[in-house]
Amino acid sequence: MQAKVFRLPMAHPGDVSALDGLISEGAVRANEIVAVIGKTEGNGGVNDFTRGYFTQSLMALLGKTLGKPAEDLIKQIPCVLSGGTEGVLSPHFVVLSRSGTASTAPQAEAALAIGTALSPPLAAEHVGRREHIQSVASAVTAAMADARISDPEDVHFVQVKCPCITSVRAEAAKARGQSVVTADANRSMALARAAGAFGVALALGEIDSSAASDAALLRDFGVFSDRASISSGVEVEANEVIVLGNSRSWSGDLLIAHRAMTDALDIGGVVAMLADLGIEAAPQVAPADAPRLKAVFVKCEPDRRAAIRGHRHTMLDDTDINAQRHVRGALGGLVAGVIGDGRIFVSGGAEHQGPDGGGLIAAIAERAVRPDGGR
Amino acid sequence: MQAKVFRLPMAHPGDVSALDGLISEGAVRANEIVAVIGKTEGNGGVNDFTRGYFTQSLMALLGKTLGKPAEDLIKQIPCVLSGGTEGVLSPHFVVLSRSGTASTAPQAEAALAIGTALSPPLAAEHVGRREHIQSVASAVTAAMADARISDPEDVHFVQVKCPCITSVRAEAAKARGQSVVTADANRSMALARAAGAFGVALALGEIDSSAASDAALLRDFGVFSDRASISSGVEVEANEVIVLGNSRSWSGDLLIAHRAMTDALDIGGVVAMLADLGIEAAPQVAPADAPRLKAVFVKCEPDRRAAIRGHRHTMLDDTDINAQRHVRGALGGLVAGVIGDGRIFVSGGAEHQGPDGGGLIAAIAERAVRPDGGR
Amino acid sequence: MQAKVFRLPMAHPGDVSALDGLISEGAVRANEIVAVIGKTEGNGGVNDFTRGYFTQSLMALLGKTLGKPAEDLIKQIPCVLSGGTEGVLSPHFVVLSRSGTASTAPQAEAALAIGTALSPPLAAEHVGRREHIQSVASAVTAAMADARISDPEDVHFVQVKCPCITSVRAEAAKARGQSVVTADANRSMALARAAGAFGVALALGEIDSSAASDAALLRDFGVFSDRASISSGVEVEANEVIVLGNSRSWSGDLLIAHRAMTDALDIGGVVAMLADLGIEAAPQVAPADAPRLKAVFVKCEPDRRAAIRGHRHTMLDDTDINAQRHVRGALGGLVAGVIGDGRIFVSGGAEHQGPDGGGLIAAIAERAVRPDGGR
Amino acid sequence: MQAKVFRLPMAHPGDVSALDGLISEGAVRANEIVAVIGKTEGNGGVNDFTRGYFTQSLMALLGKTLGKPAEDLIKQIPCVLSGGTEGVLSPHFVVLSRSGTASTAPQAEAALAIGTALSPPLAAEHVGRREHIQSVASAVTAAMADARISDPEDVHFVQVKCPCITSVRAEAAKARGQSVVTADANRSMALARAAGAFGVALALGEIDSSAASDAALLRDFGVFSDRASISSGVEVEANEVIVLGNSRSWSGDLLIAHRAMTDALDIGGVVAMLADLGIEAAPQVAPADAPRLKAVFVKCEPDRRAAIRGHRHTMLDDTDINAQRHVRGALGGLVAGVIGDGRIFVSGGAEHQGPDGGGLIAAIAERAVRPDGGR
Repeated sequence: MQAKVFRLPMAHPGDVSALDGLISEGAVRANEIVAVIGKTEGNGGVNDFTRGYFTQSLMALLGKTLGKPAEDLIKQIPCVLSGGTEGVLSPHFVVLSRSGTASTAPQAEAALAIGTALSPPLAAEHVGRREHIQSVASAVTAAMADARISDPEDVHFVQVKCPCITSVRAEAAKARGQSVVTADANRSMALARAAGAFGVALALGEIDSSAASDAALLRDFGVFSDRASISSGVEVEANEVIVLGNSRSWSGDLLIAHRAMTDALDIGGVVAMLADLGIEAAPQVAPADAPRLKAVFVKCEPDRRAAIRGHRHTMLDDTDINAQRHVRGALGGLVAGVIGDGRIFVSGGAEHQGPDGGGLIAAIAERAVRPDGGR
Repeated sequence: MQAKVFRLPMAHPGDVSALDGLISEGAVRANEIVAVIGKTEGNGGVNDFTRGYFTQSLMALLGKTLGKPAEDLIKQIPCVLSGGTEGVLSPHFVVLSRSGTASTAPQAEAALAIGTALSPPLAAEHVGRREHIQSVASAVTAAMADARISDPEDVHFVQVKCPCITSVRAEAAKARGQSVVTADANRSMALARAAGAFGVALALGEIDSSAASDAALLRDFGVFSDRASISSGVEVEANEVIVLGNSRSWSGDLLIAHRAMTDALDIGGVVAMLADLGIEAAPQVAPADAPRLKAVFVKCEPDRRAAIRGHRHTMLDDTDINAQRHVRGALGGLVAGVIGDGRIFVSGGAEHQGPDGGGLIAAIAERAVRPDGGR
Repeated sequence: MQAKVFRLPMAHPGDVSALDGLISEGAVRANEIVAVIGKTEGNGGVNDFTRGYFTQSLMALLGKTLGKPAEDLIKQIPCVLSGGTEGVLSPHFVVLSRSGTASTAPQAEAALAIGTALSPPLAAEHVGRREHIQSVASAVTAAMADARISDPEDVHFVQVKCPCITSVRAEAAKARGQSVVTADANRSMALARAAGAFGVALALGEIDSSAASDAALLRDFGVFSDRASISSGVEVEANEVIVLGNSRSWSGDLLIAHRAMTDALDIGGVVAMLADLGIEAAPQVAPADAPRLKAVFVKCEPDRRAAIRGHRHTMLDDTDINAQRHVRGALGGLVAGVIGDGRIFVSGGAEHQGPDGGGLIAAIAERAVRPDGGR
Repeated sequence: MQAKVFRLPMAHPGDVSALDGLISEGAVRANEIVAVIGKTEGNGGVNDFTRGYFTQSLMALLGKTLGKPAEDLIKQIPCVLSGGTEGVLSPHFVVLSRSGTASTAPQAEAALAIGTALSPPLAAEHVGRREHIQSVASAVTAAMADARISDPEDVHFVQVKCPCITSVRAEAAKARGQSVVTADANRSMALARAAGAFGVALALGEIDSSAASDAALLRDFGVFSDRASISSGVEVEANEVIVLGNSRSWSGDLLIAHRAMTDALDIGGVVAMLADLGIEAAPQVAPADAPRLKAVFVKCEPDRRAAIRGHRHTMLDDTDINAQRHVRGALGGLVAGVIGDGRIFVSGGAEHQGPDGGGLIAAIAERAVRPDGGR
């Protein structure tokens, strides 16, 4: 069983021609695609329709290729998009596929493993609460099994897409005699992200069950997962989970690593994560090594305390530019400078995803070529 | 003769209390201030009034302290502000002062030297043309003399503030029987910056007189200065010039260095410039060295070719966020990550100021403490 | 032959469910749809992808219904979208259809007539030049014939979508030994809109051939059509034209009227246009009359002279909000206040489309019910 | 005793030259100025520094003229600014002055009356609570007395500037053993505006004491004042109140009127308010009457229910443009169209200030000239 990763450009959010080309020439088999993670050039906010446009275009292509209705595929293949290519960031999407079957005996070396899972639909009254944490934790455990990863230490990145509370859903809950944690859609998205992060942390053993309490959501920022990347949106009713790790049940030359980032200036975390993959950045990844990097994922957050290392920042009080756009642009500039490439998935809304005021970084890379020519 | 540099925070664009405090306690002598360079939290565009607000506040403070009319001071002390503290950038201002008199004999070691000059008023019909180039070149030469720098190689950063063409000025020129190079205010600002850069390059011997032709302005981007930082605005009628370099006519522990940046991902340029100052960033300036950095200046530009190292960027076609805001945020993130501090002067509009699609970086730092305790 | 107009809501730019519903219940026949004009909630600028998203969704629906490839339909059914629902504007789309065949004898009363035409592809070297003007004029004449309108006075609104010059097209022209009028994409869009307006004015006899000169494009704003609404974009290679007018070859209860607007405060133009349709607004259209209004179209422009009736406006110098967004929001507020409804097509970029600094307004309405119960 | 109103332009937020000119030529006496209400061209949000810049400039001018410290004047002369001149709105400021002494006998006709008052400093633990409501009510009563208005029906516009809760103030309250209603600065500003509106409604007898309950703040939008215009900001520690009404204790030709606006499309409210002043708008104020209008004040709000008269608006979910900017632009367009002039004070944040989803409008005008030549 082998995972493959294709990082593809898009000329605009409706452009999936790069994938169409790879499918046509046989380089990608549509039925092996298990997930897509991408960065589109919208504003990343509630009214960012570049995500829906890309998803519609992608599913139309896959539907045509596979002869299946797009409506079905959209529930089978997680497509997680982050809007906003601020600064040097470049619009792109990462196609994750897997082929073959799990080998009976473990390989000599671990290789990139991919697993996905979908929780049962989550009722609105459970969003952002203990049940939500538990639902995500179970789905992560299922996705780990799907990825043939048994040791949580081997998991390096967990992407989750959670439902949030819309006014329609809140009304329906009320009609059922249930109450929702908040009627404010934006607040529900933040709580959903927080619950998702707690769920990941719980499944990975980063926290125990007692720490994974509703009361700590958006309050105790000392509780976090350094491998969770959570988004929340109206377009899903269940928790969609993608687990990426390394496993000896998989073959191939790809590996994944991750590091926490302590704050928005933590270049050390970036360099250390690359070192984990055997890639040196001194100060930049060398042109010879650059093609080894297949995908880079970053979560970040404008520091709530309005200062970074004692110096005031202005992201949170800017009425012109959304704070998440600010911080994505800054982190994008930093990480792109270290790796020499703007094709980075940088996503905001990192509550409990990495240390408070910071976030996390993960990357997939090919092993270095060994002196004997192998990897 | 000794230069001093004070990097001060501001709580908002009208806040000069940090300087007021230093003056009150005697740490800064108001009459020794020769220039101010700062970063305010506006949008950096035509309707950025944070620059005017700060200037008014600063000159009111200095006027009160020195017993002089603010209107006079504004013409004597160059105050160059760049609006826009995108991402991790922190609003701050750098006060440059000099004290003492030039020593008759050269010092053993060169130290930071500061010189300023003001050209005669530049007629609107000359803005963005050969005469503008020449006017800036002469003022740079005068500022070098003021700084006691004779070798252009010792100049590391030249900040120029140029007049542009307003509709009122264009009409006045027309009434004099003269024509202006463009009636479009924004275009005139770009041409003024270009002419300013050519003027600096000419004065520093980076280009010869034949290369400094009007025809190459905003056309031949192979012609540039890697030490020019130019702004243009309606608020000045003459070219204001600040020259920063190293000179053995000055004493003290401060030095300045600079490097070109080849593109927006050129972290190598940042690290090399720090190395020139004896500061290592591997990957970040160590906490022990951080206080040695007194000021950092960056010029940058969203690549005109809509791609960086082959990957599409979206800065130039964004109707929501101005392209200069995008690029400042990215470069701010990169440089702040390397130095571990968001107090960086990052300014856009870098036509002919560094390589095409790139820019330049300069910094002032204290010498390292030597084993014998000196610097 | 009868024209029908359906004004439909959209919940987001990919939502064509309202049309899907009408088709399903038989209220709209997909094969009778001749054009769509709509307002989506993007930013209205170069990076507004809500237009492409809606078009993709619409053509997918029609393709599925009609059993034709969406790629073909997109070239047959003009779909003109204006991004930006600032302020009180409401996202919606207007579906124009026609059924039946032209009657041999003229009707007693004129009724709404719709005609469309597509010019041959326009070479890049012709965009924004005399050939462009001529191409649009010919297409307007063809669309008038399609609408069975012989007297230009009976034409009240002409929507045109023009190609612009992209860098790829400019290169191709160069390879053919041709030059383009400008290499700047934004400038080419403005010139294309200007040429389109001149073409409409020429076809409608508003100006004669000598006035329709390239030299006057974007220069002599005294030359204009008060019935032209032009957009320009990369997505078309030919000029797409929709002519709306009144004709005795058509039956039905719908009529169209138009008026020029002298400036952004010209409420008189709005009220007069409504009066032309027999609708009083004193000060607002009465609830009983409101349902008679089927579609409202507005073109407008931030006054180039930075003032309206002597008072400075700030639209043109705002780095935070695009000037077209500003003016659409203001005109939207004004017109929606008069008609009591935010479903208005308000489009900027009105060069030569109505008086300088103003624009135009048109509307389709049902005749009032007569005392005898007829209309 | 006579009130005078001067509506003056500004070329930028630091420009008070129009007032300087009037003072120099004797048309305005600086010591008679009692309040200033203006519209500056910022974004109207937390990081809108155009308000501070204008205030500093104004107080510097008045300080120089009156020979008083600007720091003192700022506490004596309420200067209420709303940032944001979206669309057709024109930056301007209205100077309110009064001269003479109250006549012992009432005049034959009522005339514009102006009163101001300052509450005692409001502790942070009282902001947005019952004590805040009471504090504003008392200050309004005091300002009415200052204006010699005894009947609340004669009050037509009450502008209040309230303190809000900053983190520093919250900490201080905590240190005193007190709790604040919210630690979120933005929420505290909304609650402060709500409490201010309740205070005005209470003082004017629009609601009784039992309705003016904390529990209804930002919850029961059926409770409102149709004459309250409230802003909230960090720059004040007490409630500043300006009462405008008509009183027979005052002489002169000026009158004020007001009307509620039921929603953002309520052109009827605008026209009715003008009719109250004897000014016809059919559909626009005639050029002969336009100079009679001396000041126009509007409060408005993007409808919380995301729709206006059943049609979806997109103001609340726009990540690119703040909702208040949207609604100010729309209302500005509507009101400017009716009066034919963009010099309108349009302010958002209208919680409990007019009907839910709507707001209010007030204007000061000169009486019409009577046939006998008087007014």
